[in-house]
Amino acid sequence: MSIFGLIEYADASPEVRAVYDDIMATRKTDWINNFWKAIAHDPAMLKRTWQDIKQIMAPGALDPLTKEMVYLAVSVSNQCGYCIASHTAGARGKGMTDAMFQELMAVVGMANETNRVVAGYQVEIDERFKTP
Amino acid sequence: MSIFGLIEYADASPEVRAVYDDIMATRKTDWINNFWKAIAHDPAMLKRTWQDIKQIMAPGALDPLTKEMVYLAVSVSNQCGYCIASHTAGARGKGMTDAMFQELMAVVGMANETNRVVAGYQVEIDERFKTP
Amino acid sequence: MSIFGLIEYADASPEVRAVYDDIMATRKTDWINNFWKAIAHDPAMLKRTWQDIKQIMAPGALDPLTKEMVYLAVSVSNQCGYCIASHTAGARGKGMTDAMFQELMAVVGMANETNRVVAGYQVEIDERFKTP
Amino acid sequence: MSIFGLIEYADASPEVRAVYDDIMATRKTDWINNFWKAIAHDPAMLKRTWQDIKQIMAPGALDPLTKEMVYLAVSVSNQCGYCIASHTAGARGKGMTDAMFQELMAVVGMANETNRVVAGYQVEIDERFKTP
Amino acid sequence: MSIFGLIEYADASPEVRAVYDDIMATRKTDWINNFWKAIAHDPAMLKRTWQDIKQIMAPGALDPLTKEMVYLAVSVSNQCGYCIASHTAGARGKGMTDAMFQELMAVVGMANETNRVVAGYQVEIDERFKTP
Amino acid sequence: MSIFGLIEYADASPEVRAVYDDIMATRKTDWINNFWKAIAHDPAMLKRTWQDIKQIMAPGALDPLTKEMVYLAVSVSNQCGYCIASHTAGARGKGMTDAMFQELMAVVGMANETNRVVAGYQVEIDERFKTP
Repeated sequence: MSIFGLIEYADASPEVRAVYDDIMATRKTDWINNFWKAIAHDPAMLKRTWQDIKQIMAPGALDPLTKEMVYLAVSVSNQCGYCIASHTAGARGKGMTDAMFQELMAVVGMANETNRVVAGYQVEIDERFKTP
Repeated sequence: MSIFGLIEYADASPEVRAVYDDIMATRKTDWINNFWKAIAHDPAMLKRTWQDIKQIMAPGALDPLTKEMVYLAVSVSNQCGYCIASHTAGARGKGMTDAMFQELMAVVGMANETNRVVAGYQVEIDERFKTP
Repeated sequence: MSIFGLIEYADASPEVRAVYDDIMATRKTDWINNFWKAIAHDPAMLKRTWQDIKQIMAPGALDPLTKEMVYLAVSVSNQCGYCIASHTAGARGKGMTDAMFQELMAVVGMANETNRVVAGYQVEIDERFKTP
Repeated sequence: MSIFGLIEYADASPEVRAVYDDIMATRKTDWINNFWKAIAHDPAMLKRTWQDIKQIMAPGALDPLTKEMVYLAVSVSNQCGYCIASHTAGARGKGMTDAMFQELMAVVGMANETNRVVAGYQVEIDERFKTP
Repeated sequence: MSIFGLIEYADASPEVRAVYDDIMATRKTDWINNFWKAIAHDPAMLKRTWQDIKQIMAPGALDPLTKEMVYLAVSVSNQCGYCIASHTAGARGKGMTDAMFQELMAVVGMANETNRVVAGYQVEIDERFKTP
Repeated sequence: MSIFGLIEYADASPEVRAVYDDIMATRKTDWINNFWKAIAHDPAMLKRTWQDIKQIMAPGALDPLTKEMVYLAVSVSNQCGYCIASHTAGARGKGMTDAMFQELMAVVGMANETNRVVAGYQVEIDERFKTP
């Protein structure tokens, strides 16, 4: 159950509870997943990571569902089991249908394939793709 | 310029030209980028890869821009220079603004960060995230 | 329990026992972890890997704890579950405190984040960072 | 020179200049490297990334040189060219000698080797390495 | 048991059964492994992936055992647990002996080691290794 | 030209020359590629790495060409530019034809694709694939 164990709300310091409260309020849930309880042993990291995620995953030029699916795509590409499970749940909660998940996996698979083919064939960047 | 050199349209076999024609027709362009010219030395691979990409990147449950950004996100995560350059161009051609690119990079960076933190802390999957 | 099973000391050939003995003597322990028992089916690999690790992890310009933490950092970055578990134990045995582990994870996470941001933004190497 | 070009100090907004100033003051230098100039097009990201790095790389339970070498080790493991060049310079600036660099590379190489051998042999985690 | 559960033959649509039948006929077996049952929820992906694998893994300039061992080597390098287990079985079924597996792992480990050493030392490509 | 520059034969110590001589004799060539000249600044690493590669890449249960192609496949999967260039040359020198290279790339691409699809669908290992 994680290297230092999990810090439950009841056992958390006020500093940690404040982050837990903000997570639950922002996500409109009464539940904290293991990731946060695991890193809560390092309150500075807990706070910094949550603030970053809160800022980055907020609606902006990209909508929250797109962001969540990108997060999932990267986690799948990196083969992080926990991240795949949690962000699949997160994306579904934001509206990802089964069909969307399936297309997402197809794109992730294809990208991983061609990324290596490009490397193996040593393909040079086209002039018009180069940055100025 | 790639391991076997690049096969230009003028020098291509009818089999290869048929794929080039379909790429240009599908993408509504008169231009073929280096990736296809590099793998055209293996016509079976050229044809198979194009057919897969054509099928996978077509509009469906996810729109083409979202798919292109996911492709870019994976390529960035894998640090494939050619793929980053070509899919940045591709995503821009489909409507990705600078603000969308910037948010995309923020999500990709964050996902790569937490993927490793999860691994290092050995966080176990929450019961409610598990598949049945 | 590993692809060929684990070779216990009692069942080991003299060649394998010699390596086991050296591991235990070098590490001042009476115990062999699964990694060595798993690869002992290939005595040449067992011997070569142990000799390399013994040489590389010995005190030198870097102290053994720093080396062990670097080993852990790479294993976390690669998301190798076994390696994370064994090198976390190894680093703790050499003096890594909880606070050191937490800071280590923060650095590993940050490096993985910026590695991708650099790739996505296609940042060119500064002149003064280039090798001669 | 990066996807949006580089924002030089003279052309920067007050918001961006404030970050540049803090980078130079913290690092006791009069120079900003390309990474910051590239992401400065997204001031929120510039500010967030710098604050995170400033907090994470500060002296703590681990000294700044150790942190910088861990950053380099991860960047090498991920094969990020820019990051390797910049963090090699950074580590040298903090006191990494040639001998330290060489030992660092040996550890990184070894870790990457055994990470895969462990995976291939499907080695199970020893009971005593498991988290409670 | 996979995100959507596994589709057994008895419950499969005619479209899915046709692929299952071809897999069993091609592999001369009466058994379908979980990978296919998991992606069968997306019949287009099932069909496309099987057709690609059937074409790519067929005897050609490389024999099927060599291809299977390369598949395993990549899966080990990527640390994909399922893929390692299934392709180890696949390679053994095609004739991979224990000694061949052991040498394969040694090569995979070595390649992963030197890939990083090359990156860390920033070794430039020799003129005679460059593509024309 | 690498972080410490390259050590040419004429400038090498007797210890380094002995390794260079063995590389040239083993490979039946009068030429040393940059990798060795780059790491020769650390004679212990030069010697250890060469001895490992000499042992691992020697004919055994797998022939040298197969080993070289596996090395290339892993290097492509890791996207190591130098390694891809040098091991493509190495494999060609041992008899890899264009057709063999093309099939190799197809397998590497496919493996990278399905490795991620497996992760995303969270496919469990079949009972009969499990190690005892």
